[in-house]
Amino acid sequence: MNYLNSTNNQYGGTYVSPKNLPDSSAAFVSQLKESLTIWQTQKIKVVWIKIPNARAKLLPLLYQAGFINHHCDLNFMMLTLRLEEGAVIPPFAKHTIGVGGLVINDNNELLTVREKDHIKTHPHNWKFPGGMLDPYEHIEHGVIREVLEETSIQTEFHSFIGFRHHHQGQFSTSNIYAVCRLKPLTLDITIQESEIFDAKWFPIEDYLADEKIGKYNQQILQSALKHSGLKNINLPGYMPSDQDYEVFMTP
Amino acid sequence: MNYLNSTNNQYGGTYVSPKNLPDSSAAFVSQLKESLTIWQTQKIKVVWIKIPNARAKLLPLLYQAGFINHHCDLNFMMLTLRLEEGAVIPPFAKHTIGVGGLVINDNNELLTVREKDHIKTHPHNWKFPGGMLDPYEHIEHGVIREVLEETSIQTEFHSFIGFRHHHQGQFSTSNIYAVCRLKPLTLDITIQESEIFDAKWFPIEDYLADEKIGKYNQQILQSALKHSGLKNINLPGYMPSDQDYEVFMTP
Repeated sequence: MNYLNSTNNQYGGTYVSPKNLPDSSAAFVSQLKESLTIWQTQKIKVVWIKIPNARAKLLPLLYQAGFINHHCDLNFMMLTLRLEEGAVIPPFAKHTIGVGGLVINDNNELLTVREKDHIKTHPHNWKFPGGMLDPYEHIEHGVIREVLEETSIQTEFHSFIGFRHHHQGQFSTSNIYAVCRLKPLTLDITIQESEIFDAKWFPIEDYLADEKIGKYNQQILQSALKHSGLKNINLPGYMPSDQDYEVFMTP
Repeated sequence: MNYLNSTNNQYGGTYVSPKNLPDSSAAFVSQLKESLTIWQTQKIKVVWIKIPNARAKLLPLLYQAGFINHHCDLNFMMLTLRLEEGAVIPPFAKHTIGVGGLVINDNNELLTVREKDHIKTHPHNWKFPGGMLDPYEHIEHGVIREVLEETSIQTEFHSFIGFRHHHQGQFSTSNIYAVCRLKPLTLDITIQESEIFDAKWFPIEDYLADEKIGKYNQQILQSALKHSGLKNINLPGYMPSDQDYEVFMTP
């Protein structure tokens, strides 16, 4: 066989998996050339090839053939080549998602932290505990986890209050920072020594009156005090398992 | 000089830019070895190296030295190596963001489309017009753009109604699909021939009563009819330019 075995998809694309890469680079060059002719005859619109790190020597050969990077994971690079002008190549992920937990106790105090990383540059940066979602983590789970890790306060989910969206994240990513209101189940704070400088229950009135506090956080707190926010809605039968998704809206 | 020039960051990391890569692979191997000794002496926690596609021959050498892929763009690969056990390597983007436009006219009709890609497998999939955000696009802009492209209906932003979050996106990504209510400024539909099979103004009562319509879309529509949703809030002075961000909450 003098071509690369590949699998066609419903969008007019074809995919070469690592198991279909020949052992030698010379054979790869020859098979790729033959395959490109075949794919063009078959009116394939887009070619995808996954190159495991162990076969990285093939990458310069693919760049030479016009392939471009699409995305990578720890152990592979996915490359793509458009054979039909204007064919759609779906973009890879561009967003990171952060979560903040707005936790208010029965004394009208807000759970706040100061992060070690910011204590020198922004000493008065009292903010909601929170952080980035873990890979494949739901928002509801992530915000409860982050509050617990940073402050040891246990909480349950109340509502989705609002979010900020911008395009100035690390590594040229865009970022969504979503704030959820949580109900505290415990009150004693123990900080996460590695990341948190200190934490406290901040009286809400003082927080709203403090001119050094971030405007976004004050607005979110005011909104949470006035409105009930979006709820986490269950839609039985919507996806194979209720664990597969979360949906936030006003019920 | 027998080491790689690099720039330290505030998190205890150091970064080798493409311009600091020597011309020959042999020199690279030798400089990398020397640099790793120096960085360890300096207690550097994480090393970052950006390899342009034109220098892809260096990748196997980096994998051999223990580097792993972090992320790529069209023209480069970013690799990383943890020198201090447990040091944080911030994850790259895992999420794609889709937007749907809920557009209701004065006759209580909902703007709906059927997509070409789904017409055979899901012939009754009447859904809100929408699509994926372009890179670095705001949600408000993206949803207005998608509705205009798919149906030629011009709209203005009304509110953010709710969203769905799952982890079963293309290329092992997670996905947020956010629905915004828009006010129609025009009424005559012209479909985007390339992607849309047909489009129509669907009477709301029929849409809600139709058992073949998706549950999520029906829930979102019901929520939009009962509640006003989150508004796009302006926070003057919050970031260098008001164009830099969008914030959604209940004012």
